[in-house]
Amino acid sequence: MSEEKTKRTDVNSLGEFGLIDHLTRMAVPNNPSTIKGVGDDAAVIDNGDKVTVVSTDLLVEGIHFDMMYTPLKHLGYKAIVVNLSDIYAMNAVPKQITVSIAISNRFSVEALEELYEGIYTACKQYKVDLVGGDTTSSLKGLFISVTAIGEGEKEKITYRNTAKIGDLICITGNLGAAYLGLQLLEREKQIYLENPNIQPDLEDQQYLMERQLKPEARKDMIEMFAKNQLVPTSMIDISDGLSSEIYHICKQSGVGAVIEESGVPIHPDAQMMALQFQLDPVTCALSGGEDYELLFTIDPNDVEKVKYLPDIYIAGEIVDKKEGVKLHTKGGNIHDLPAQGWVHFDPNK
Amino acid sequence: MSEEKTKRTDVNSLGEFGLIDHLTRMAVPNNPSTIKGVGDDAAVIDNGDKVTVVSTDLLVEGIHFDMMYTPLKHLGYKAIVVNLSDIYAMNAVPKQITVSIAISNRFSVEALEELYEGIYTACKQYKVDLVGGDTTSSLKGLFISVTAIGEGEKEKITYRNTAKIGDLICITGNLGAAYLGLQLLEREKQIYLENPNIQPDLEDQQYLMERQLKPEARKDMIEMFAKNQLVPTSMIDISDGLSSEIYHICKQSGVGAVIEESGVPIHPDAQMMALQFQLDPVTCALSGGEDYELLFTIDPNDVEKVKYLPDIYIAGEIVDKKEGVKLHTKGGNIHDLPAQGWVHFDPNK
Repeated sequence: MSEEKTKRTDVNSLGEFGLIDHLTRMAVPNNPSTIKGVGDDAAVIDNGDKVTVVSTDLLVEGIHFDMMYTPLKHLGYKAIVVNLSDIYAMNAVPKQITVSIAISNRFSVEALEELYEGIYTACKQYKVDLVGGDTTSSLKGLFISVTAIGEGEKEKITYRNTAKIGDLICITGNLGAAYLGLQLLEREKQIYLENPNIQPDLEDQQYLMERQLKPEARKDMIEMFAKNQLVPTSMIDISDGLSSEIYHICKQSGVGAVIEESGVPIHPDAQMMALQFQLDPVTCALSGGEDYELLFTIDPNDVEKVKYLPDIYIAGEIVDKKEGVKLHTKGGNIHDLPAQGWVHFDPNK
Repeated sequence: MSEEKTKRTDVNSLGEFGLIDHLTRMAVPNNPSTIKGVGDDAAVIDNGDKVTVVSTDLLVEGIHFDMMYTPLKHLGYKAIVVNLSDIYAMNAVPKQITVSIAISNRFSVEALEELYEGIYTACKQYKVDLVGGDTTSSLKGLFISVTAIGEGEKEKITYRNTAKIGDLICITGNLGAAYLGLQLLEREKQIYLENPNIQPDLEDQQYLMERQLKPEARKDMIEMFAKNQLVPTSMIDISDGLSSEIYHICKQSGVGAVIEESGVPIHPDAQMMALQFQLDPVTCALSGGEDYELLFTIDPNDVEKVKYLPDIYIAGEIVDKKEGVKLHTKGGNIHDLPAQGWVHFDPNK
């Protein structure tokens, strides 16, 4: 009964960022209160004194998480944290969340209670209020849609498009561990599927597992910035890997970047596990994703403020656009950094 | 690998409202900026001068819509409108929306363009900005999650829990038409499935079809309230049928209600179609759902303001809680109104 247009372009042909760009090209804000629309970690809405910051994510079973090794409590926690991370990446403070879920009848009330236990634990940890949502059925699988709402000061909100040549590039925490945690869980899943009598032994890999299953957002960094009166010149959270994020900042700011391989922080456990998997630890850090650390740039005059702060690493410099986005290796070579997003496994392909 | 708790309660045993109550019972707001959390059409957040109002919905293919008779453009339009309706129901004005979608690889770029065409048409019609969202894969089916963000004045926001004894109950527009439109589409679908050579003839039923496929939110009413300096004492949008909505107001306000059957507005086309289907038109109006009209109560002193406004019908009165929620029929009988939500068809049951 419904008509089909004749032309058919596969959605995968555009890529995730291409598809979003394509569909949102008409989303030009008209309301004066819309300070920032599509294209950053979160939207920014003027409300007089302060600004309201809004971010949203949709998590899909089989795409973003595998119920076989994801405890529901951790899933609930992570679903919230990844959204809060977007609000912090605007240098704002999340205050409220809404959570909508679609569930198949495979889920029991007890399973949902576990999921919500994780959600409430995150709310408590990050001092946000659950203020709304929707609960509905799905024909198959679990879907979680979270919207986070935060508060910020207009002149302190940090965007992706405001990095300047000469700014220093900073990274919090360490990168690649969440990706290696995922590899580990996938490996154990395969072993278990082949022989259910072999129980996984993941005791020694607590750190990598937690980075994947129960990540934290860098609330502490935003608080430290405020305390030290530091306002980054640009900021983004590292959800898709450093390469992808620095590319977003460079593209939107109209600049280039040089990243020093020696400045990319990698946890010793991630180093070790990468070698076990015969992977390059730096590639894991650059392209792995799901670390939820912060990538930000600072004015060189602020370097003293950053230098002595814990868990912040200066990893490069913003340069002219025509120099591109490069990696300066420990061996002294210079490579192009690929603009590579996190590619979700697609079982239909 | 993941543990299963031993007790297993079927989610359907609690019902939609019961399940939401159960899962959100711990959602007690702690932030001073959270004026209203879970339990109304939208959450209300203090931002100094004004308030920010937030509402969210998750629409699922096969549960909320059937792709067989829902043009994607209309679906995009409706997904936005049902959320804006929640913001208007708070006596606030929507300003921004976020839209997240999960799609299976059955959808082409052209299909998504059609969906977004409907979304942008709604944005233009209601003067809201699309400011964010998420685009991801699903293993099966289309999921649309929309969050609407609005602006209101603190003292004019209308809640569900503030109806008072003696208030008059008002309804906008007419009820039941969207439900009968759905019955019609379902009937034509069955005929088509049995014999694809028979093309549906729905020309005469334009009104009912539009009420189902392309509903509108009552922006005009909110503007009229402002112009006439009318602030309802309570308000809710009619998404699940009048019975369900008046029950929400009564339960939350701690009052009872008497609805006059003669005061329930029904469109002549809905009257006719109900009779064709051998359904009681009043039952369709009371329990049908998806009309997206407004149900509100006013102080009796404001009756003159409402009396001469177009498309508003006085349909009853708020009474003491112990009198319950009743329907006063045209024949002079008094029935209990059942607290009946919209029950989605669940093909897994």
